[in-house]
Amino acid sequence: MRSNLEKSAAAQLAHVELLTPKMEESLWFFREVLGMEEVDRQGQSVYLKAYEDFYHHSLKLTPSDRAGIGHIAWRTSSAEVLHTCAQEIEQTGLGRGWIEGDLGHGPAYQFTTPDGHNMEILWEVEYYKAPPGKESLLRNRNQKRPLRGIPVRRIDHVNLLASDVTVNQEFAIDKLGFNLRETKIGKEKVRVASWMSVSSLVHELALTRDPTGSKGRLHHLAFWYGYPQHLFDLVDVCNEYGVKVEVGPGKHGASQAFFLYVIEPGGNRIELFGDAGYLIFDPSWEAVVWDVEDEEAFNKSSIWIGPNAYPKTFYTYGTPDISGDEK
Amino acid sequence: MRSNLEKSAAAQLAHVELLTPKMEESLWFFREVLGMEEVDRQGQSVYLKAYEDFYHHSLKLTPSDRAGIGHIAWRTSSAEVLHTCAQEIEQTGLGRGWIEGDLGHGPAYQFTTPDGHNMEILWEVEYYKAPPGKESLLRNRNQKRPLRGIPVRRIDHVNLLASDVTVNQEFAIDKLGFNLRETKIGKEKVRVASWMSVSSLVHELALTRDPTGSKGRLHHLAFWYGYPQHLFDLVDVCNEYGVKVEVGPGKHGASQAFFLYVIEPGGNRIELFGDAGYLIFDPSWEAVVWDVEDEEAFNKSSIWIGPNAYPKTFYTYGTPDISGDEK
Amino acid sequence: MRSNLEKSAAAQLAHVELLTPKMEESLWFFREVLGMEEVDRQGQSVYLKAYEDFYHHSLKLTPSDRAGIGHIAWRTSSAEVLHTCAQEIEQTGLGRGWIEGDLGHGPAYQFTTPDGHNMEILWEVEYYKAPPGKESLLRNRNQKRPLRGIPVRRIDHVNLLASDVTVNQEFAIDKLGFNLRETKIGKEKVRVASWMSVSSLVHELALTRDPTGSKGRLHHLAFWYGYPQHLFDLVDVCNEYGVKVEVGPGKHGASQAFFLYVIEPGGNRIELFGDAGYLIFDPSWEAVVWDVEDEEAFNKSSIWIGPNAYPKTFYTYGTPDISGDEK
Amino acid sequence: MRSNLEKSAAAQLAHVELLTPKMEESLWFFREVLGMEEVDRQGQSVYLKAYEDFYHHSLKLTPSDRAGIGHIAWRTSSAEVLHTCAQEIEQTGLGRGWIEGDLGHGPAYQFTTPDGHNMEILWEVEYYKAPPGKESLLRNRNQKRPLRGIPVRRIDHVNLLASDVTVNQEFAIDKLGFNLRETKIGKEKVRVASWMSVSSLVHELALTRDPTGSKGRLHHLAFWYGYPQHLFDLVDVCNEYGVKVEVGPGKHGASQAFFLYVIEPGGNRIELFGDAGYLIFDPSWEAVVWDVEDEEAFNKSSIWIGPNAYPKTFYTYGTPDISGDEK
Repeated sequence: MRSNLEKSAAAQLAHVELLTPKMEESLWFFREVLGMEEVDRQGQSVYLKAYEDFYHHSLKLTPSDRAGIGHIAWRTSSAEVLHTCAQEIEQTGLGRGWIEGDLGHGPAYQFTTPDGHNMEILWEVEYYKAPPGKESLLRNRNQKRPLRGIPVRRIDHVNLLASDVTVNQEFAIDKLGFNLRETKIGKEKVRVASWMSVSSLVHELALTRDPTGSKGRLHHLAFWYGYPQHLFDLVDVCNEYGVKVEVGPGKHGASQAFFLYVIEPGGNRIELFGDAGYLIFDPSWEAVVWDVEDEEAFNKSSIWIGPNAYPKTFYTYGTPDISGDEK
Repeated sequence: MRSNLEKSAAAQLAHVELLTPKMEESLWFFREVLGMEEVDRQGQSVYLKAYEDFYHHSLKLTPSDRAGIGHIAWRTSSAEVLHTCAQEIEQTGLGRGWIEGDLGHGPAYQFTTPDGHNMEILWEVEYYKAPPGKESLLRNRNQKRPLRGIPVRRIDHVNLLASDVTVNQEFAIDKLGFNLRETKIGKEKVRVASWMSVSSLVHELALTRDPTGSKGRLHHLAFWYGYPQHLFDLVDVCNEYGVKVEVGPGKHGASQAFFLYVIEPGGNRIELFGDAGYLIFDPSWEAVVWDVEDEEAFNKSSIWIGPNAYPKTFYTYGTPDISGDEK
Repeated sequence: MRSNLEKSAAAQLAHVELLTPKMEESLWFFREVLGMEEVDRQGQSVYLKAYEDFYHHSLKLTPSDRAGIGHIAWRTSSAEVLHTCAQEIEQTGLGRGWIEGDLGHGPAYQFTTPDGHNMEILWEVEYYKAPPGKESLLRNRNQKRPLRGIPVRRIDHVNLLASDVTVNQEFAIDKLGFNLRETKIGKEKVRVASWMSVSSLVHELALTRDPTGSKGRLHHLAFWYGYPQHLFDLVDVCNEYGVKVEVGPGKHGASQAFFLYVIEPGGNRIELFGDAGYLIFDPSWEAVVWDVEDEEAFNKSSIWIGPNAYPKTFYTYGTPDISGDEK
Repeated sequence: MRSNLEKSAAAQLAHVELLTPKMEESLWFFREVLGMEEVDRQGQSVYLKAYEDFYHHSLKLTPSDRAGIGHIAWRTSSAEVLHTCAQEIEQTGLGRGWIEGDLGHGPAYQFTTPDGHNMEILWEVEYYKAPPGKESLLRNRNQKRPLRGIPVRRIDHVNLLASDVTVNQEFAIDKLGFNLRETKIGKEKVRVASWMSVSSLVHELALTRDPTGSKGRLHHLAFWYGYPQHLFDLVDVCNEYGVKVEVGPGKHGASQAFFLYVIEPGGNRIELFGDAGYLIFDPSWEAVVWDVEDEEAFNKSSIWIGPNAYPKTFYTYGTPDISGDEK
């Protein structure tokens, strides 16, 4: 009998490359505030991981003149699937070809989404091994919990701004094997957001409509705490050390995520995820629909617990920042 | 491209039937203390659900002269898989045949594990619809959160005592499609516990060696809170209302579950799960091994945070209770 | 050597009488949502207590055509002090004379603040004794923790709207022995808020400037949880059962209180206090001053963690509601 | 009208001097694990404070051949009281005379308790001023929250082992103005523990019977977190970095403190206090009595929530360690 993990396309979010115009400040934030571990450096890039990430790195930080996504890497569910998946994407004309690999992983097939976000799929990964003195006694944790800042536990998901949510959602479903978990329908039946996953999580990939109509922007990258208290600890610390807190803590209605959004010094929006939300095990799950015409519920879909509303920036700001405003 | 949910055997724990010699007291516990909803009654059985369970029920409570498991139901990942899976089990000689269904679900194929635990697999399920006034505004929650007790959110997993862990683990892997996530090896290389899952959870099914050598017993049934605070609230309440708390709150090393174990009035051990532990997304996950020869780590595998040790009962007590002791 | 509790004026907030135009709905809220215990009834009034309140009651709920404060009762630190204190107040012309007592307490001297809030001071109190079956095993808790709602633990403080903060603050300090703990200075050096206490708490009594210039109104009455999680549980429940959440959860800068403000069905604002804030033990404490000219800090004094801002109602709404708006 | 803080003897626990045979390791623990700030050094001693302590320091760490208490300092409620109090102690023959002061405070009168613990009382204190860059925007917090370890918020209380609890309790009440809050009576009516305070806390000073009959030992020094989550974070970290966790987290019945006990590298037992417990505002509070003859309650007085029992060391181990065992 087959395991339900044997056949699939994307199996998990492996790592994300973030671009930052303030490398030192961004590095300070991820290392000293979010307690991430610096694993490696190559060229101008620094590779980091959270203490419960299993692979070589979950975050690659690269200097750039503008903030935003470098690329997003998905690990496929098998070596064969990597190749089938690459072939199918190749046929769409969105493929950018194979690279031999990078620190921490083997061959990767690179492509862009219809909206222009850079992605890659890969199979071979290097597992992180802690250097002497940093090993944990927990055989299911590959390094000691750090003593720095409020340490995040693992990478969780990415939320991308898209000029057209539906088109990009279909690409993720058809080509990467994602399942639609929740979706938001706005005025004139325009789809304004979708949450998709290939696991029990409600999402590893979310899409939000970019009201500016621009393409390929990042709304946020999320790391996981799992305990609400740590979001309060983090805001306390961000206030003390001058890191901008955009909104939260609070709990979304859609996805039921316990959220906090901060702007890292380089300008990228980072979400900290404070609980487990709810998990999906139903193999015939039908996407939860939040329709603006179901008004009372729709109004609770953004924030169920917490702030009364999002600041305007939450809808318009993304990286690269095209607003020209100071953020 | 295939979704990774399309091919699989068991997809999730659908419901569990618990037997109790103290029906009224057990019902009081699940309804008034764990805040579960009474959904239906048939014969002498009462059907209950937690407020974040999506199906008709997750718990069927049935009067009996002895506590223990009535049966454990797994939903398969598709209608076809239900039949393939049933045929494969049929060939093992452990099959007990098809039933037309029960309240809340369609045809189910019943069988026993090598150790004699009653299980069934099924596909067709009835989704719970809250009666007028009990609907939630949350479109991803199918009833209002109750105002009774410390309400659990959903069913989580079962932990079965087995005379031989390895044999039963192989059955779950080969016939039901489970993945081995963690395992514990004791003296003389005897396998003393295993945690298996078909989702991102570390386990929906765990097996623990029954030192008494008896068969078919339940170690515990677990419900999920997701917030550590609720475990403390529950102990506070159990102490007030005379429900036996066996051990916890604490955090296991193996599975990293934030645990609390109480004995419901009927005698069955119930675990309350206080956080999300860690989740597994790695498609080539290799089971974490806790070996008694890796002594320092092995000693932390039972309890990483919390009590210094388990009470003796935690190793020997199960239902049905064959100890003859007062529990 | 004298205990530092022997000489003092007011020693603690004993109870508050709330007026409500929706008696049944308000009673449902305090009993079923905040889990308070109904202790007694007299006339049309209902007497309630939280499960960690030690006296006969901490809340007296009385039907009225308008919401607001009935009266606020302070227990003095001794019988003699009750009389000295009464005499001093008598001389101010604000005295309203002695009453024989009420359910749960002996003789009380009644008076109004300069702003017209009804208050009383008393010494003799009746301690709550739980009826058979409701006693706790905890010898420092006088009843079982309830199984209803998200039970509050004890009454905490009152926050009164005042047409002139300074005048009323001086009355509380000179006549009742309060200590000024924190104060907020707005434009043109106008005092906009003060926090005062007679214990290690930052406040049992707070005063907020009433921008409408009206007198004798209530901003909020606060009950204590002590655990942040319970504020999230409460919002979850309020959203489900239609109780208005005005703002929170969050953490104030001033007083560092972990706050949540809801409007009980009768219209009174109720604060739920989610942590211990900070406590004051310094016998020569100098009031913390938040001055609008110290702009960056002043801006953090309202909300340090949580929502980006208060809704407008937080500044203008009080009970009785003189806005004429539906609340 | 008098403030209830004007007349009193001891008003608060000002600081404690701990002796350690492993200065560097102890310093690492308080600085890197408990996140305390190093404020000053003099001779071989290092002065530290928690980020919510208001004075120059709350902990003085001094190298010594044996672990234990150097001295315990109480701030009195006024300058006059310091002198009256000193005179009264002088008459008992337990006085050791005045010192001019130490870093962070003025003249102090030193004495020993009947059991031989070194104490001092003082009035003049220096308030901590953070150096440039370390100031907080919170005007009621005198330094930024540190980014190191799991930072404690303030010093809370001391628990002393005493050969005779009653005699030492009477000294604290008669000479220092403490109030008896809770007490435990064991077999043959022997008093085994008492909790005393001069504030709303249940205790700043606790006494536990030393079963070894030795004198002047420390059971533990406690620092305050106020949030249960931080106790779990701390155990996680202690397990990773090899700090011995003796027992907890859990909640005592007596005092209702949310406790965790760890042994700092020098051997002194440190309690971390995870919530606010309950607070006492009642001016005529009668001590809660836990009597071994009230068996069921007495059994819950040690641990209400958490471990099933204390390890034997909890009753016998103190510093200096006279057991001769490795600890």
